[in-house]
Amino acid sequence: MATIFSKIIAGEIPCYKIAEDENYFAFLDINPVSFGHTLVVPKIEDDYIFNLDPDYYAGLWKFAQKIAKAQKEAIECKRIGIAVIGLEVPHAHIHLVPLTKEGDLDFSASNKKTFPKEQMEEVAQKIREKL
Amino acid sequence: MATIFSKIIAGEIPCYKIAEDENYFAFLDINPVSFGHTLVVPKIEDDYIFNLDPDYYAGLWKFAQKIAKAQKEAIECKRIGIAVIGLEVPHAHIHLVPLTKEGDLDFSASNKKTFPKEQMEEVAQKIREKL
Repeated sequence: MATIFSKIIAGEIPCYKIAEDENYFAFLDINPVSFGHTLVVPKIEDDYIFNLDPDYYAGLWKFAQKIAKAQKEAIECKRIGIAVIGLEVPHAHIHLVPLTKEGDLDFSASNKKTFPKEQMEEVAQKIREKL
Repeated sequence: MATIFSKIIAGEIPCYKIAEDENYFAFLDINPVSFGHTLVVPKIEDDYIFNLDPDYYAGLWKFAQKIAKAQKEAIECKRIGIAVIGLEVPHAHIHLVPLTKEGDLDFSASNKKTFPKEQMEEVAQKIREKL
């Protein structure tokens, strides 16, 4: 069965899309830990990022680097933090999280936010413009 | 001035070393958030991981993949999580953290641990043996 991320990639579930190429896909996290928090996923479904073929995996990180640079330009923050946890959705994904202080990389439920559709669309647009 | 990580790489500050090649270095975090928590650093000092040259940066992630696979074999855990925060030491570094549940990727001070020297040496040895 396709993962939720594969359904997003296929356009079966809507998302605030940031970028896509032949192998990888990026979109806003719908429950961000900070504004502009983006997920980067491989189009190949694999439950565990370190199981990916080394070159394909390195390509995923290069793709994430481009997204992170655009995020940093588009969003008021000190830098873009990275997290891969991977115990929730069985499809490897990189969290790119705008940070202003160390404690911002906090995935506890109480730190997850929601923003109005208009703000999500606006920040997605801003990031895309910096790519 | 050399960062603390450059001093570790140069052998001026002791560490529990895991691996090293021409470009990258890995050693145990002295205040781990879980047992076996390892830091992977580029030998080039740069404050921000996304500023690294894309090929050098991709090489860093490939090096981290090898370390993470060895950690997973050496340590009782579900998988190895990843974090890059980078607001503390001005030298880019990847945290590779053995996880058993989602909340384990927690960098708050109250979650940082210390283990006796013998246990640190033992886990470093176990990881090295799996490389």
